[in-house]
Amino acid sequence: MADSSEPEATAPSRRALIGWGGAGLALGAVAVGGAVAVTRADEDMDPAGASAGAAVDFHGTHQAGIATPVQDRLHFAAFDVTTDDRAAFVAMLRDWTEAARRMTAGHAVGEGAYGGLAEAPPDDTGEALGLKPSRLTLTIGFGPSLFERFGLAGKRPDALIDLPKFAGDNLDRNRSGGDLCIQACSDDPQVAVHAIRNLARIGFGKVVIRWSQLGFGKTSSTTPDAQTPRNLMGFKDGTRNIAGTETARLRKFVWVDEKDGPAWMEGGSYLVARRIRMHIETWDRTSLQEQEDIFGRDKGEGAPVGKAKERDEPFLKAMLPDAHVRLAHPDSNHGATLLRRGYSFTDGTDGLGRLDAGLFFLAYQRDVRKGFVQVQRNLATDALNEYIQHVGSAVFAVPPGVRDKDDWWGSTLFSEEA
Amino acid sequence: MADSSEPEATAPSRRALIGWGGAGLALGAVAVGGAVAVTRADEDMDPAGASAGAAVDFHGTHQAGIATPVQDRLHFAAFDVTTDDRAAFVAMLRDWTEAARRMTAGHAVGEGAYGGLAEAPPDDTGEALGLKPSRLTLTIGFGPSLFERFGLAGKRPDALIDLPKFAGDNLDRNRSGGDLCIQACSDDPQVAVHAIRNLARIGFGKVVIRWSQLGFGKTSSTTPDAQTPRNLMGFKDGTRNIAGTETARLRKFVWVDEKDGPAWMEGGSYLVARRIRMHIETWDRTSLQEQEDIFGRDKGEGAPVGKAKERDEPFLKAMLPDAHVRLAHPDSNHGATLLRRGYSFTDGTDGLGRLDAGLFFLAYQRDVRKGFVQVQRNLATDALNEYIQHVGSAVFAVPPGVRDKDDWWGSTLFSEEA
Repeated sequence: MADSSEPEATAPSRRALIGWGGAGLALGAVAVGGAVAVTRADEDMDPAGASAGAAVDFHGTHQAGIATPVQDRLHFAAFDVTTDDRAAFVAMLRDWTEAARRMTAGHAVGEGAYGGLAEAPPDDTGEALGLKPSRLTLTIGFGPSLFERFGLAGKRPDALIDLPKFAGDNLDRNRSGGDLCIQACSDDPQVAVHAIRNLARIGFGKVVIRWSQLGFGKTSSTTPDAQTPRNLMGFKDGTRNIAGTETARLRKFVWVDEKDGPAWMEGGSYLVARRIRMHIETWDRTSLQEQEDIFGRDKGEGAPVGKAKERDEPFLKAMLPDAHVRLAHPDSNHGATLLRRGYSFTDGTDGLGRLDAGLFFLAYQRDVRKGFVQVQRNLATDALNEYIQHVGSAVFAVPPGVRDKDDWWGSTLFSEEA
Repeated sequence: MADSSEPEATAPSRRALIGWGGAGLALGAVAVGGAVAVTRADEDMDPAGASAGAAVDFHGTHQAGIATPVQDRLHFAAFDVTTDDRAAFVAMLRDWTEAARRMTAGHAVGEGAYGGLAEAPPDDTGEALGLKPSRLTLTIGFGPSLFERFGLAGKRPDALIDLPKFAGDNLDRNRSGGDLCIQACSDDPQVAVHAIRNLARIGFGKVVIRWSQLGFGKTSSTTPDAQTPRNLMGFKDGTRNIAGTETARLRKFVWVDEKDGPAWMEGGSYLVARRIRMHIETWDRTSLQEQEDIFGRDKGEGAPVGKAKERDEPFLKAMLPDAHVRLAHPDSNHGATLLRRGYSFTDGTDGLGRLDAGLFFLAYQRDVRKGFVQVQRNLATDALNEYIQHVGSAVFAVPPGVRDKDDWWGSTLFSEEA
């Protein structure tokens, strides 16, 4: 496969683009003269206005989609690698990067497919044509099992541990793990779904989707002073989340720095993804007082026990010993603080007439051992556990940002030997 | 259960409300003095502005959610009845109506649960607090199997047939049928999910969810001159949909009138719901030309073969004999025309690395036999069938609208013997 990371000033490799689908070359590559790329940004069909339709910069020291203000919708996919060909895999990462660069800017994948008298097979599946960029971010992560491939064993970060089994875990293998992941966040679900689908298409023959998750409503905020959106228990949770503007807390709790190592992860982070099923029918039959005692905050405002406002400093000793806020608070966890970016999910019904619904928990941290593992162990006695169950789990090393248009996802991990 | 259809000027029956959850009475009914209902409409957290946050009138000759301009998101649930007690079922319909009236106006279910020092169990699950009405509509339908209960056998409309088996059907029993259904449409998915969940909660002991479906993106428009949103094949389909303002076409194709009978259905309609899985990975490897030939329209603009614009009158003979537009067009179906209100879905992965995605097709019509059955039979030779499969199916009689605050869902069917 051709290298699509060449400077954009030269003509993009159309051959590489149409080869992605596997059948493209067999169908014939027809050059399209004078075609112009259709950009979603050109149109204005979105009633939400400019802010919701805007583009988020794909390039930077850190990947977008972590400190970025949380978008409304999520499509998350974990992939397994199906090739032993390192060069082909690296070429796919470069192709993915180029596609991600285009899609986050509001363009279709490839150029010219819909301009003029195009007869070539489509470079893009098309369902996002006419839609705005909608703040799409695409964030890649590498799972522990990836480091068993491609001669990467010596590169696996110490902080990327296999998660231990936690009390109450009931993990479904088919909703856990993965060699790599893509987190697609956008204010428009069609834009997020389109992005995952097109990356899966580009990866055909190299990777296959292991599991995926749609999140319909955000449950956290990384915007300072914004109210925390409610989860499906009707509560605000994780109310003291790290804001994307809090540089010092991000540096302390989220971004890997040069002291942490390995060097290829500097500027990156670690992501823990947990599918947390809520037994909402049982929860809904619990009294308001009991619900508030379990959380350690009131339902209406979200204030900690005895306080008036959501963001008031909690007085932990006023809460029951097994209250969720008390057990999850940094003061109970040697200071451990996570950047939360989870979404609510509702995936139909479980066959027993109950909604298969809950929280798809996503948390970023500088070290999984000092972050999620610390907190989750402390939640072993959480009163909330009677109403929830962790049914899916994965952990990923999230590499640093793509610096510029010549850089690509995973370059720090793969380039020295590429 | 108390009758909650009493005029709103008198105090609502709080006892009936807290009894809904089943455990409510056991936990004790505490009167809450001076509490005020928290309304979602009071707040302004939605960046989409007033139009997206507005309320749609629940009352009218027809139910809202049919001719109403299509909202962005869907949560659809089919329920089975679990009680033989007709009076209890009718009381639930009245309670559902009152809850639907409140939720579509942007209020929580019940009154006062979060105002003041409430200690009673919550009347509302709370996750939509602080959100706007978001154009929520709730639309009820009665399935054929409901008429085998409660002495209703003589009331089943002739037009509410059991759908025949169509060529290519591969129906999953667990995604088909249902004694009744609720279609919840809203511009905010959390609002739609909240509504279904609270109706399920109120129905505890009388009904249980049989299956449910989340739709993340609308695929049709009932707004005149609006562009048709793309489906997950990247195409605009059903482009000549009936607009909510086209009174004559609505009367001709959608609303049951006094000539049609039965009398209790006058002003109602019939809903066909089909879960249509798309084999999108196969589709994505098909050339653009082939895709356009299969549909009979171009992908970029959505214009019929040989025409320039989406809404140009198609020249059917210019299309391949098995083109989708040609076979689905009213001219090929004795004039049959459906009001389409379908949504795209993506429900994770199918275990073979393929996205479980497609179209949740919803169509309203005056007579199922002359509407969906006619068109679907004609689509037996549709070229599109190689890329899709119908995996779920249901049909419902959708009664007329709730006239005013004293009326309730199903009153025309149940009241004469209630």
